[in-house]
Amino acid sequence: MSTASDLIAQLDKLSIGKPEILEHAQVKGGPEWKAELEKAGKTGLGMTKTLLFKPKTAKTATPTPVLIVSLESSEYTSAAIGKLLNLKELRLASEDLIKETFPGAESKDDVSLFSLPTPAPETLHLILDEKLASSAEQHPFRIAGGAVTAFLTGKEIRQFLASVKGGEGEKGLKVVDFQQFKSEGGEVKKEEKKQPAAPVASGIKPQTVKKDDDQYEMAIRFKKEEDFSGWYTEVLLKGQMLDYYDISGCYILRPWSYTVWQTIQNWFDDEIKKLGVQDCYFPMFVSQARLEKEKDHIEGFAPEVAWVTKAGSKDLEEPIAIRPTSETVMYPYYAKWIQSHRDLPLKLNQWNSVVRWEFKNPQPFLRTREFLWQEGHTAFLHKSEAEQEVLQILDLYEKVYTDILAVPVLKGVKSEKEKFAGGDYTTTVEGFIPTTGRGIQGGTSHHLGQNFSKMFDVVVESPDTTLADRKMYVYQNSWGLSTRTIGVMVMIHGDDQGLVLPPRVALQQVVIVPVGLSKAEGNNEGIYNKCLQLERELISAGIRAKADIREGYTPGWKFNDWELRGVPLRLELGPRDIAANTTLSVRRYDNQKTPMPLPDIAVTVRKYLDDIQSAMLVRAQKTFDERLKIVTKWEDVVSTLDAKNALIVPWCEAEKCEDDIKERSKGQVVEGVAEDAKAPSAGAKSLCIPHDQERFGAFPDGENQKCIQCGEKAKRWTMFGRIPGRGNDTICRT
Amino acid sequence: MSTASDLIAQLDKLSIGKPEILEHAQVKGGPEWKAELEKAGKTGLGMTKTLLFKPKTAKTATPTPVLIVSLESSEYTSAAIGKLLNLKELRLASEDLIKETFPGAESKDDVSLFSLPTPAPETLHLILDEKLASSAEQHPFRIAGGAVTAFLTGKEIRQFLASVKGGEGEKGLKVVDFQQFKSEGGEVKKEEKKQPAAPVASGIKPQTVKKDDDQYEMAIRFKKEEDFSGWYTEVLLKGQMLDYYDISGCYILRPWSYTVWQTIQNWFDDEIKKLGVQDCYFPMFVSQARLEKEKDHIEGFAPEVAWVTKAGSKDLEEPIAIRPTSETVMYPYYAKWIQSHRDLPLKLNQWNSVVRWEFKNPQPFLRTREFLWQEGHTAFLHKSEAEQEVLQILDLYEKVYTDILAVPVLKGVKSEKEKFAGGDYTTTVEGFIPTTGRGIQGGTSHHLGQNFSKMFDVVVESPDTTLADRKMYVYQNSWGLSTRTIGVMVMIHGDDQGLVLPPRVALQQVVIVPVGLSKAEGNNEGIYNKCLQLERELISAGIRAKADIREGYTPGWKFNDWELRGVPLRLELGPRDIAANTTLSVRRYDNQKTPMPLPDIAVTVRKYLDDIQSAMLVRAQKTFDERLKIVTKWEDVVSTLDAKNALIVPWCEAEKCEDDIKERSKGQVVEGVAEDAKAPSAGAKSLCIPHDQERFGAFPDGENQKCIQCGEKAKRWTMFGRIPGRGNDTICRT
Repeated sequence: MSTASDLIAQLDKLSIGKPEILEHAQVKGGPEWKAELEKAGKTGLGMTKTLLFKPKTAKTATPTPVLIVSLESSEYTSAAIGKLLNLKELRLASEDLIKETFPGAESKDDVSLFSLPTPAPETLHLILDEKLASSAEQHPFRIAGGAVTAFLTGKEIRQFLASVKGGEGEKGLKVVDFQQFKSEGGEVKKEEKKQPAAPVASGIKPQTVKKDDDQYEMAIRFKKEEDFSGWYTEVLLKGQMLDYYDISGCYILRPWSYTVWQTIQNWFDDEIKKLGVQDCYFPMFVSQARLEKEKDHIEGFAPEVAWVTKAGSKDLEEPIAIRPTSETVMYPYYAKWIQSHRDLPLKLNQWNSVVRWEFKNPQPFLRTREFLWQEGHTAFLHKSEAEQEVLQILDLYEKVYTDILAVPVLKGVKSEKEKFAGGDYTTTVEGFIPTTGRGIQGGTSHHLGQNFSKMFDVVVESPDTTLADRKMYVYQNSWGLSTRTIGVMVMIHGDDQGLVLPPRVALQQVVIVPVGLSKAEGNNEGIYNKCLQLERELISAGIRAKADIREGYTPGWKFNDWELRGVPLRLELGPRDIAANTTLSVRRYDNQKTPMPLPDIAVTVRKYLDDIQSAMLVRAQKTFDERLKIVTKWEDVVSTLDAKNALIVPWCEAEKCEDDIKERSKGQVVEGVAEDAKAPSAGAKSLCIPHDQERFGAFPDGENQKCIQCGEKAKRWTMFGRIPGRGNDTICRT
Repeated sequence: MSTASDLIAQLDKLSIGKPEILEHAQVKGGPEWKAELEKAGKTGLGMTKTLLFKPKTAKTATPTPVLIVSLESSEYTSAAIGKLLNLKELRLASEDLIKETFPGAESKDDVSLFSLPTPAPETLHLILDEKLASSAEQHPFRIAGGAVTAFLTGKEIRQFLASVKGGEGEKGLKVVDFQQFKSEGGEVKKEEKKQPAAPVASGIKPQTVKKDDDQYEMAIRFKKEEDFSGWYTEVLLKGQMLDYYDISGCYILRPWSYTVWQTIQNWFDDEIKKLGVQDCYFPMFVSQARLEKEKDHIEGFAPEVAWVTKAGSKDLEEPIAIRPTSETVMYPYYAKWIQSHRDLPLKLNQWNSVVRWEFKNPQPFLRTREFLWQEGHTAFLHKSEAEQEVLQILDLYEKVYTDILAVPVLKGVKSEKEKFAGGDYTTTVEGFIPTTGRGIQGGTSHHLGQNFSKMFDVVVESPDTTLADRKMYVYQNSWGLSTRTIGVMVMIHGDDQGLVLPPRVALQQVVIVPVGLSKAEGNNEGIYNKCLQLERELISAGIRAKADIREGYTPGWKFNDWELRGVPLRLELGPRDIAANTTLSVRRYDNQKTPMPLPDIAVTVRKYLDDIQSAMLVRAQKTFDERLKIVTKWEDVVSTLDAKNALIVPWCEAEKCEDDIKERSKGQVVEGVAEDAKAPSAGAKSLCIPHDQERFGAFPDGENQKCIQCGEKAKRWTMFGRIPGRGNDTICRT
């Protein structure tokens, strides 16, 4: 059974009423599912999880899988369940066993309670969380296929599962009070408490176990190259960069990621202060009249503006918006504060959050409803001063990526079609994600010309008394960089083991792990003390180090834990190392092992961290350069894009031609190649016209070079590429 | 004529329809007026201003005042108006002239267009802004008394004023196109452009002119001791600390004040990181279910929660709140993240803004609808660890006040009545504003005990395996400090000349002003260069210095400008100083003048700034100590409070007694003293029970000391005082 109508029929036979059925986008994993339900207004639900375990049995024996259906919030350990059922060492089941248990399941997405055979085999243990079983509320259960959810009360699911298993009792459905269980305090395995078991039925595929079973639940269960989106979510969650939140599109920035942002903040803030920029804070609220003052500017934001209409139980006289950006908030005050050319230049910046209530699929860091950023807004008497600043800021943005995040970017100017609508032109730093072959905008620095100053009447009298008309509208810039930076960094450096953090932004740069420990208790004090001493020595040299002397975890478990979290350098310290007065260092980004003498270790480590920082950029730059393909013939465009590259092409810079390129590079059938339904179908957009044209050499046809698409005269080399498929870029609108 | 009904009758005679009349709170100055109108839903209005000028005439001549009625947004210069009317040197009128022009006005608050005599004297020039005259929209005009506003269109006010002046024309009402005027470019005086003229009719009283007329519009027009609230607003606005915003209760933090906050942020953030606290960022939005999870906790906030109900043009399925504080936002995740005692302590902090939509009178920094703060939320295994942290944080809050802001505070614990409702106890740093005699809460550090952990199920298993029940709810703290700090600093140090900034938080610590300049152009290059050289020397030593070489301003004007803005140190540099290789330094806080040798000037200045910082605290501490009066007899309570002191009294700590003290100290008639309607009528509240009891010595009656109010046994010395009258404290609710 796998469709909603099958389910309804079956429930009907059990005299269970017709359940509410919700169709939604195909989802993978719990957070995506929850987000889909929330989009449909199904918030505050008691989510459910379904896990399939396999006890340790002889290889030749028939497997006796254990299926546990519970509230997502309920806690239990597989050990305690094993004890209850008198089974040994329960582990999450392999994909083969999952398919066997849910016959007809063609893929992991087909897994659903409603796909269980009726009657279920005797070998299957079926456990239901008592808290769920007794709930009178509606809970969501996925129907095979991953795009349909049914809502049943606890009682109904109990009735359904009992019918599948031929009743309740020893051989039937077992309803278990996990709470009871927990307080009875069976032997709880730390590892299991540490990392909740993997939600099988919500579509996360268990990996085969490597070194030891302990690593099982900790590892990233998606390959970066195979399922980039699943990998990205898991790396962020398990790396403790962020957590999902009960409002869709909002995420919690945990210290591991917020530190990255603070590092960027501190550096960038110092740099702009050297340029004479001052920080300030404008209110997050904007009156409707002010927000809508400039129709063209607001047009792009209007559908996404969040409106406050109530305070306490009172309706406000007039709705008040939460800023989606601050032009209309700030510029009326620029008009007020700038009374004379002596008040120029005015250079203000603010670190704040803005809200854009997008209804499209949110993505952590890259597309969120609230995000942190800085927005700089400056005003000058002369155009030349403003234009100089545009480039100074762009250089700083480049350095944020290259020097802090070890991420290569390409500086350039946006095409007319892609520029910030309210401005004269937009400069940008463009990144590239090799795994997906997509370009990504890293930060933009706009020259607004006099467009806004005319709109908001920001005007002074020219100091030049010889002019006939001394009225001068000021020249303005605006520039913004957001927490998107963090997402790009994760996408570039992370690998199948988890996060890989550049040393400059790692909250913890070095982990010291004791190895070669004795099993006899109390025998390891010497090693632990040496680890702590090393920690103190590094910390006092300004290195963010930590000795991991947690008991009850194997060194291997700790290695994996810190690898998952991306700590740049591991130092292993055991009896032999201590005897030799050395430590074995292991670099996260390339796993290189190097012994280091303990004397002067802080100097060695400091230097080594700097080397890692540089080497990470060099490696990423190499890939970036390799994937930036110069293409001069149209027939090479789609195949080069399909091979996950970005293009550098000779282009005429006409808007119509840009539209045509996008259209023609979209899911095109290449001659001699069968059309692949799964081929990337997004068309290529212009990403930037690089400032450094010389890097790509002269046009092959020199003065006569034709545009790659339309054949008109080409103007400059231009970077084209596919971008993450889901609509407009978040940042490009300031 | 001074009442609304008089006005209606008069307008009726002119066949002007009955205007809309709004009664509101008594207001002073434009921003307060605007705020009152906005509270009544009158937003987006074209505000108006009415200014009275006096041209230079022989002292014995009959004054020929010039009354200008315009839109607030319209710009003009008195010089241009003077030219138009062929009058010399227009200056803002004295209060005497204002009273003469508006007969019957008993105070400045009685000033209103509708108080003009009909017919108006021939000597009065009456000018109306053409932009206002031609407006078909309704504009607000105050009716004498300051608590009533009438709304008239431009046409109606034109008709009214023409009737007052006997028609339009040479001797009647003049309607003038200021825009025209501006573009014709009359000679515009810099000073006038720099600082908009004072709004007389909105109740700001002009001061007599001191040294030269130029200072006139720049100076603070309220005495700190005479009109504290007017003084505070003016100091903030003219000192460029903040600007008013078109949403009531929201203010713009300009760089001059934001720098203070950043200084606090940087220092405090470093300090808490040393304690192992990590920064993070939680979303600003809270779902209704989550916000309302804990009824008692939310009760206090509920009437002030701002609700987002729409995004774009779509209604949200469920309203979403903007956080008023983050307990219910964060603690569900604490329950999730804290799985084992090994995950403790968890110490998180965030720098963010919160929103409390108060309907009471807002006050910059002290009571605002959105404010910036930090909120720390920590969890521990043991109560003792948590309690230790409460005090560590309190010490840091004390240092923020004493070491950064040079503001004295008293540390202690709140009474049961005054503590944070959700916690076990609240510790606090209490400040005191001598000018008003009011106490003010500076920051609070709460021990929450297990109240929230039980509510949110933040629980671990005790590592102590010998316990029968190993389930342990964690112990929690929360602590917060807001931008209120800035308001307290301004109130403590500011004086009648304007702001006085402690050097540590001054965006500009030193101003270098060239003096003894030659009037011949081009002759001052040498002095200017020396000033710039001195600026460079100081900046390269890390001192925030600026040479003010603006041309067209007198040294006296510059002195006043920087005094107004509170720059801690002025260095004067003229030909004689340069010859003697010295500079004359002038300290802002006490005006002390000291010559300083130019060699090694950076070292001298650095030391001097440090001295200023300490001396400001010493001076403020002296006043604080003097105003903290030990009182042991009830009959001294009210008179001591009335003399603008805070009290240290022996107290029983019973809640009922606290209520009685508040009631009995409220507007009490002291024997032999006539009841003064204007006497402070607020009752005294307990501010804190000081941690340092020894400071106040033993109780006079030792063990037998009775409570000052109820006569029961006294427990500890307790600080009581009046607080700013308008309802609850903003911060005390975390």
